[in-house]
Amino acid sequence: MSDWFEGLDTTLGMVWSQIEAAGTRAPARFAVFASVGRDAGAEARMVVLRGSDRQRAEVCFYTDLLSCKVGDLAQNPAATLLLWLPELEFQIRLRVRAQVQSGAQVAHLWPDIPPASRRAYGGTPPPGTPIDAPADHDPTIDPARLAVVVCGIDQIDTVCLTGPRHHRALFLRADGFGGQWLAP
Amino acid sequence: MSDWFEGLDTTLGMVWSQIEAAGTRAPARFAVFASVGRDAGAEARMVVLRGSDRQRAEVCFYTDLLSCKVGDLAQNPAATLLLWLPELEFQIRLRVRAQVQSGAQVAHLWPDIPPASRRAYGGTPPPGTPIDAPADHDPTIDPARLAVVVCGIDQIDTVCLTGPRHHRALFLRADGFGGQWLAP
Repeated sequence: MSDWFEGLDTTLGMVWSQIEAAGTRAPARFAVFASVGRDAGAEARMVVLRGSDRQRAEVCFYTDLLSCKVGDLAQNPAATLLLWLPELEFQIRLRVRAQVQSGAQVAHLWPDIPPASRRAYGGTPPPGTPIDAPADHDPTIDPARLAVVVCGIDQIDTVCLTGPRHHRALFLRADGFGGQWLAP
Repeated sequence: MSDWFEGLDTTLGMVWSQIEAAGTRAPARFAVFASVGRDAGAEARMVVLRGSDRQRAEVCFYTDLLSCKVGDLAQNPAATLLLWLPELEFQIRLRVRAQVQSGAQVAHLWPDIPPASRRAYGGTPPPGTPIDAPADHDPTIDPARLAVVVCGIDQIDTVCLTGPRHHRALFLRADGFGGQWLAP
């Protein structure tokens, strides 16, 4: 009986089971979203995965419509979502095309956002504006500031460090995510 | 008595105490390194911090000289190192200029690399090459494949989510890392 990381299909199954568990308290709920900033350098920040669709090969997270990354993505949507699962010693890199949705397109999602999470959307002045002191920020919540970043997955690059040999695999949308081993 | 995240100098102190603890088993030992790939999209992967120098405002990690990111950095050295400290609900973003060192410049570091970590350097074919099966990769270690990525910090952007109010601060090399509050 082989371990899951020894098969391409079982590796891809582990990727999706981790992503799909992200709605719960699984470690995979927290991911890093890397994008290219307006100065052409790489930016990265933590995000919380909010949903996924294996058929469409999409995952999504929420952000403030006025956050810097929304502007960045309008210029360059080629981004990476990185998940690291320490118990499995498993790294999942999703190379994605990110598309930002807002306004009427996403307003139906607001009622399901827990009250404690709503303060992530809103506030004056907008995120990243210099202020004299933390108290100079008015944190008033604004539902119109909810934005959903839908990430269409083009490639899944996995590395598993468990076991005597490292396993690395690449799955491409272009070939139906059939999978290919790579040198680790 | 205020909490550390309520002061700019205490926030910067926490950043460096976390980075400097990275040689131990602190959570900050694992960081995400985001860079711009050759297709101009953002890439990200886990790295292990190996050293730091607060006076020079530098941190470093090791990688395989033939890894994809080494080639990427030659084209675009503007990268981000992201540390997330879940217990503190503290995100540290280091915007860096990355410079790759190898060969005689770094050979003196090899004896201090634990044997179990050495298999990260070497192997045939090089990282990312398609192979038919994991067993087709020869993992022979090669000390000449050690590369050190020295990251000179230009900006430190912190967000602390602890407490009733989120705190965000920016520290710039250009002004001696004096610090400035930002809207979170």
